[in-house]
Amino acid sequence: MSAPAGDLLVRGIGRLLPMTGPLVPAAALLVRAGRVAWSGPERELAAAVAPGDTPELDAGGAVVLPGFVDCHTHLVWAGSRRDELAARLAGTPYDGGGIRTTVAATRAAGFDELVELTEARALAALRTGTTTMELKTGYGLERAAELRLLDVIAAVADRVPVRIEATYLGAHTVPADRDRSDYVAEVIDTLPAARAAGARWCDVFCDTGAFPLVDARRILAAAGSAGLGLRLHADQINRIGATELAAELGAASADHLDRVDPAGARALAAAGTAGVLLPTATLTMRTGRWDQAAVLRDAGVVLALGTDANPGTSWCESMPYVIQLGCFGLGLSVDEALHAATAGAAYALRRADVGHLGRSAAGDLVVLEVAHEADLIGHLGAPAVRRTVVGGVPVG
Amino acid sequence: MSAPAGDLLVRGIGRLLPMTGPLVPAAALLVRAGRVAWSGPERELAAAVAPGDTPELDAGGAVVLPGFVDCHTHLVWAGSRRDELAARLAGTPYDGGGIRTTVAATRAAGFDELVELTEARALAALRTGTTTMELKTGYGLERAAELRLLDVIAAVADRVPVRIEATYLGAHTVPADRDRSDYVAEVIDTLPAARAAGARWCDVFCDTGAFPLVDARRILAAAGSAGLGLRLHADQINRIGATELAAELGAASADHLDRVDPAGARALAAAGTAGVLLPTATLTMRTGRWDQAAVLRDAGVVLALGTDANPGTSWCESMPYVIQLGCFGLGLSVDEALHAATAGAAYALRRADVGHLGRSAAGDLVVLEVAHEADLIGHLGAPAVRRTVVGGVPVG
Repeated sequence: MSAPAGDLLVRGIGRLLPMTGPLVPAAALLVRAGRVAWSGPERELAAAVAPGDTPELDAGGAVVLPGFVDCHTHLVWAGSRRDELAARLAGTPYDGGGIRTTVAATRAAGFDELVELTEARALAALRTGTTTMELKTGYGLERAAELRLLDVIAAVADRVPVRIEATYLGAHTVPADRDRSDYVAEVIDTLPAARAAGARWCDVFCDTGAFPLVDARRILAAAGSAGLGLRLHADQINRIGATELAAELGAASADHLDRVDPAGARALAAAGTAGVLLPTATLTMRTGRWDQAAVLRDAGVVLALGTDANPGTSWCESMPYVIQLGCFGLGLSVDEALHAATAGAAYALRRADVGHLGRSAAGDLVVLEVAHEADLIGHLGAPAVRRTVVGGVPVG
Repeated sequence: MSAPAGDLLVRGIGRLLPMTGPLVPAAALLVRAGRVAWSGPERELAAAVAPGDTPELDAGGAVVLPGFVDCHTHLVWAGSRRDELAARLAGTPYDGGGIRTTVAATRAAGFDELVELTEARALAALRTGTTTMELKTGYGLERAAELRLLDVIAAVADRVPVRIEATYLGAHTVPADRDRSDYVAEVIDTLPAARAAGARWCDVFCDTGAFPLVDARRILAAAGSAGLGLRLHADQINRIGATELAAELGAASADHLDRVDPAGARALAAAGTAGVLLPTATLTMRTGRWDQAAVLRDAGVVLALGTDANPGTSWCESMPYVIQLGCFGLGLSVDEALHAATAGAAYALRRADVGHLGRSAAGDLVVLEVAHEADLIGHLGAPAVRRTVVGGVPVG
């Protein structure tokens, strides 16, 4: 479906966090035709808005903030990585090779099966407050299989009330049976078709065990020429210069950044490239590296959070889980984490219409279970989101 | 209520993890009068069990394991520690002083309010699979207030279908307005009344900023004489010898252990004292110390997991959350974490009737959402438990 566009008056908001300005206590918010038409103190509602038969939603004194923006997922996959998980918990180092296990299962799965699996995950995300979501390909690793995954993403976008951004990640890893330079040439050849199949973005996993700098540069340069925006998996496993490359090429985001150093962070800040932090991957890979947010903050990089949803190193559709781990793992403050999960992530996707609740923004919002946003962080393992609204329509 | 005692036939178990022996695939389990009467391969059910009108529960191919045993909670409190959380996320070190904030709010709360708050938390635990739970006092910090908290625990035990163990933790911290030695004398004087009010256990927070070794020794020696079992908060903030004291006194458990060293671990192993790990507290205090499970494992200590549910450093009632963090934080294997959350935690409470599903064990079990126990670990932020059964009665 295209995103809903309805009318809704949200009353009884204990604390409204619009992300464009200061918190508004005891607030109301009006959505008209899918867009924010008014928000402010509830006592000013009558003077500001003509009475009508707008559907109402009572927030019951809870916190309301923009719907979460998950700016980094690998949501389209089949199969299981249970065995790899058990091995890693027994001490086997992760080198990215597990991606190939998922590639085999994903290639073998039917189109409808992939749509259903991905739809179920997107709906799980919606239930935990995600209203905009980036989805990468990357488990096809050959031209036709990668383009099929873009078709899956388009089909899912038609079925769920979540705003979808599609990313072509043909350069996720080198297929086991392929020569690297041949495969890089294929990825580059595929870029126009990927754009035609709905991709807005191109991403490359630029790291030890994946693609070196020279390949990432070639692919991303071609992607820019093909009209795709740029993103980059950078500084996750080893620091090989990917962060600086993202900055040099003006990528919208550099993602992971577990090993970013101050120089890399300064380059991102100067280029206006968002730093996308994926703390669940840091957790499950047990690297113990949690200082990246501080390094990026010190340099003034715009911070974003994402789930990195994938079957191997971050099986997680829940932005509340990520937000909590952003605080307790990465050391973000409450306000920083919530900004990174909304406005920061929207910036990483270069979307001005989502991630905030300023006037004329998309009417995408979540009603939390709690009356104070710090309690969303504090209460681990508890239900976080009571209602999710997309375009003024309650959808979860 | 006393724990339910019903009849139930659980069929369609994809994988039964009894914790007393090997996994049984394609299993069934029969509870009679609240106790496990039979379990085994479902194909052997007809030969083993006479047909009857026993209520049935279809596990739908999911994993079934014993109900979780949460062996360390501070569940009885009023008030909020939001401000402390925000301060810690901004870098203020934790010294245990926040306990006094909760003491003031808890003393000020009415009895019924405390019962309702605690009951709601116990029910949240039940929904995530906890069927036996230890609850500590410790937010009264004066004789009458502490005994009132034991009355609250008894009232909650009457209202929820969770098996409750009550612990007197008068020695949680020194009240702000009291001389330490006077207060220690009061704690010791209160022990017989605490036992009469339902406490089975006595615990002491023995650490820098709380009670030194000399006090812990006096209190626990007196507690033993008063007929209470012993537990000890040990090696959480600094290593001051508390772990060795727990072993010397034959405590049932030493808890936290973030700073345990191999010598302390060997002492616990030799004494048969369980090591209770509380990874959510380690996470929220951001100590970065995650090697304690390995130290304890190497020494052969029985490992247990608990939520440490409290308003300041671990607001969490969810054992699935703790189990996941036991793996990804502490480095437990899947089997180790599940054992620590069931049989290991039951051992830490010296309960032979719970934490396993051997013959004549309590009919307390959980039906997971997933078909393989590794998926309980892997899927972060997702619903974990489909059904909870206590004494053969589905209760959640």
